[in-house]
Amino acid sequence: MLGSLALRQAANPAPPSINGTRLINHIDALSEFGKNSEGGVSRLAYSDADRRGRDYVIGLMRGAQLNPTIDAAANIIGRRAGSEPSLPPILFGSHTDTVPEGGNYDGVVGSLGAIEVAQTLTENKIATRHGLEVIIFQNEEGGLIGSRAIDGELTEKELALVSRSGKTIREGIEYLGGDSKNLADVRRKRGDIAAYLELHIEQGGILDSEKIDIGIVEGIVGINWWDVTIEGFANHAGTTPMNKRQDALLAAAAFIQAVNKIVTNVPGRQVGTVGRIQALPGAPNVIPGTVVVSLELRDLDRSKISMLYGQISEEAQRIARTHQTSFRFEEINTNIPAPTDARIRKLIAASAEELGLSTKLMPSGAGHDAQDIARLAPVGMIFIPSVAGISHSPREFSRPKDIVNGTNVLLHTVLKLDQTRLS
Amino acid sequence: MLGSLALRQAANPAPPSINGTRLINHIDALSEFGKNSEGGVSRLAYSDADRRGRDYVIGLMRGAQLNPTIDAAANIIGRRAGSEPSLPPILFGSHTDTVPEGGNYDGVVGSLGAIEVAQTLTENKIATRHGLEVIIFQNEEGGLIGSRAIDGELTEKELALVSRSGKTIREGIEYLGGDSKNLADVRRKRGDIAAYLELHIEQGGILDSEKIDIGIVEGIVGINWWDVTIEGFANHAGTTPMNKRQDALLAAAAFIQAVNKIVTNVPGRQVGTVGRIQALPGAPNVIPGTVVVSLELRDLDRSKISMLYGQISEEAQRIARTHQTSFRFEEINTNIPAPTDARIRKLIAASAEELGLSTKLMPSGAGHDAQDIARLAPVGMIFIPSVAGISHSPREFSRPKDIVNGTNVLLHTVLKLDQTRLS
Repeated sequence: MLGSLALRQAANPAPPSINGTRLINHIDALSEFGKNSEGGVSRLAYSDADRRGRDYVIGLMRGAQLNPTIDAAANIIGRRAGSEPSLPPILFGSHTDTVPEGGNYDGVVGSLGAIEVAQTLTENKIATRHGLEVIIFQNEEGGLIGSRAIDGELTEKELALVSRSGKTIREGIEYLGGDSKNLADVRRKRGDIAAYLELHIEQGGILDSEKIDIGIVEGIVGINWWDVTIEGFANHAGTTPMNKRQDALLAAAAFIQAVNKIVTNVPGRQVGTVGRIQALPGAPNVIPGTVVVSLELRDLDRSKISMLYGQISEEAQRIARTHQTSFRFEEINTNIPAPTDARIRKLIAASAEELGLSTKLMPSGAGHDAQDIARLAPVGMIFIPSVAGISHSPREFSRPKDIVNGTNVLLHTVLKLDQTRLS
Repeated sequence: MLGSLALRQAANPAPPSINGTRLINHIDALSEFGKNSEGGVSRLAYSDADRRGRDYVIGLMRGAQLNPTIDAAANIIGRRAGSEPSLPPILFGSHTDTVPEGGNYDGVVGSLGAIEVAQTLTENKIATRHGLEVIIFQNEEGGLIGSRAIDGELTEKELALVSRSGKTIREGIEYLGGDSKNLADVRRKRGDIAAYLELHIEQGGILDSEKIDIGIVEGIVGINWWDVTIEGFANHAGTTPMNKRQDALLAAAAFIQAVNKIVTNVPGRQVGTVGRIQALPGAPNVIPGTVVVSLELRDLDRSKISMLYGQISEEAQRIARTHQTSFRFEEINTNIPAPTDARIRKLIAASAEELGLSTKLMPSGAGHDAQDIARLAPVGMIFIPSVAGISHSPREFSRPKDIVNGTNVLLHTVLKLDQTRLS
């Protein structure tokens, strides 16, 4: 602590602290919108709860003297002018929509933490060189829609897809006050954004189990998702002897185990998951003829994903021969890895050190709006611990002290960034 | 062939042959009711196609001078009087309903074969001592409903269940001309039936691959069905490291492989199948927290089923420990094995030998109405080959010569039974 005090004194001027009690109160208040009986939050993008929660957030922005507007893609943006109008703005924020039966921290900590940072600056009359934009992206959980509108990836075809709310993306944008006909207005190009920062809960259990205060995100992993169709031959479970079967589910079982073995067989933090399975015809008395499973691989390094996929598809061919079945892989979705900016990682580390907080460099295994903005601008992400690593669950929890720590790191990092020339 | 001719001459008088051309024509004609685009038949019990097919069958019975009536359970029964009215009747028949997207042989061969036997007797003015009843059981595929009404197992609760036709069992019985309020009328007790014979396609590939003409069924296997619930912990697929997972689907994969290994590890004709699987929440990006699979074991010997189940549940506990999951077994349904009558098996063998046909003693891996009647009376079953062992499929096929052979064996066996005192 002496060391950190010494450093804090060295800063000129030492940044103020955010108001932790106020921030926690805001987080608790937002949890009322979409609160469910299990103690969690269901605030699906484009639901009534989503819209009402966003209205509350807009009110908080006004209180922080941000000047909130809703862009054509229905992102909420609160602006604070900088002293050097020629500089592009620094953006920071997150999202307030949740998964069904989700928790109250995923997205919320980074959203309300960003508003708290702006309010702290205003209360302490701290001017910045860059303009600041606190941004609340819409529909993060349903496919990073708001941030993908900004980097120009959102397609017309996607606008017609029905989201989990029951509304199409287009209807959802209109419902939240956007203007889906003018999405071109929200696109930004390289140079339009000085940097983007996002504070977020880890959603995994590494920081919690290792008792580390702050995660400095190295990058957001690439995610490759395939559907794997295994064809055998459906037949009567009573009349088909064991040695005459072409059981697609037995082959799928060998495949699921092979995925796990291959992914864990090399050092590193890569993960591989079979999360979905469907066996047809799906009756207890019929040998499954067709099985479809999902295969998802994640890593910071694209080439490692390719290497693992190569091994898995080779092993699948071996299983196919053993079980007299066939395997077909269909690529469904690919998110390429999004590295964070090395200079911003250093600023986050320095901020944490000033505050006497321990840090760990780590990948983000989950997707975030930051990965889209990374295509336009340098980005950084600050993680705080998730208790027991539970997320996307009513049992998701982050401790108030960690939320306050993370928000103070965000504040310090914004101020350091403001003094840095990144482009 | 000389030997078989010699035997045929030894019979006194030698039974006539059935009219194969007529029988195949009838089978083809019945296939029009519920014919589907894939060349198969969908004649779900209680559907319009089922009722219309039954009307056709009733007409065939009238042509054979059987006197068809519909009993309270909606079984069709065609009667032919015997010369000794004090003797209980000999029953033979099968069913005409099919599975969805089924074939034209399962149930049909035994039903129309039975009518052909009766017509042959009538045309040849052959009297029998016992009365004969050709019986077409209703809704075999949806739970042996017609035969279970006869042995008194059909419950009030079951009558309220919705069948695959959309109608409840009770509505289905009324729709087919039964009288569901008076099911007690159809119950028979031990001694009411002299014997029951059923001709059926094998539905497996043993006779076809071994080029054997006739299967003599030793018994209908017992079927035990459990649902197995595997509990792990659902978590984010991106943020949960491989070594921190409690993946219920990975445990299920090990279980599916263990079932196959244990069932094939001992000699015998037992089978074990995992035909149904559900993984929750079932998203590509979430580690499955709960998996439910079906486990079905079949064998002629109850104690072997118990032994296999014991090994499987023990192995499940080992898998549970390895994968930090739990396994729970719930017994859903048990059909005890139903042995056929040894004396009837001998009569079938003698009949086949007279006709110069090769035979093989074998279990029925599939369930049949015969298993219910076995609780009341001695039963016998005659199998004919299924090409490539395919059944419950539009590709189900039995060759005309095999259908004719099986029906002649049925005719001979009925006549031998008529001369035999079984009780």
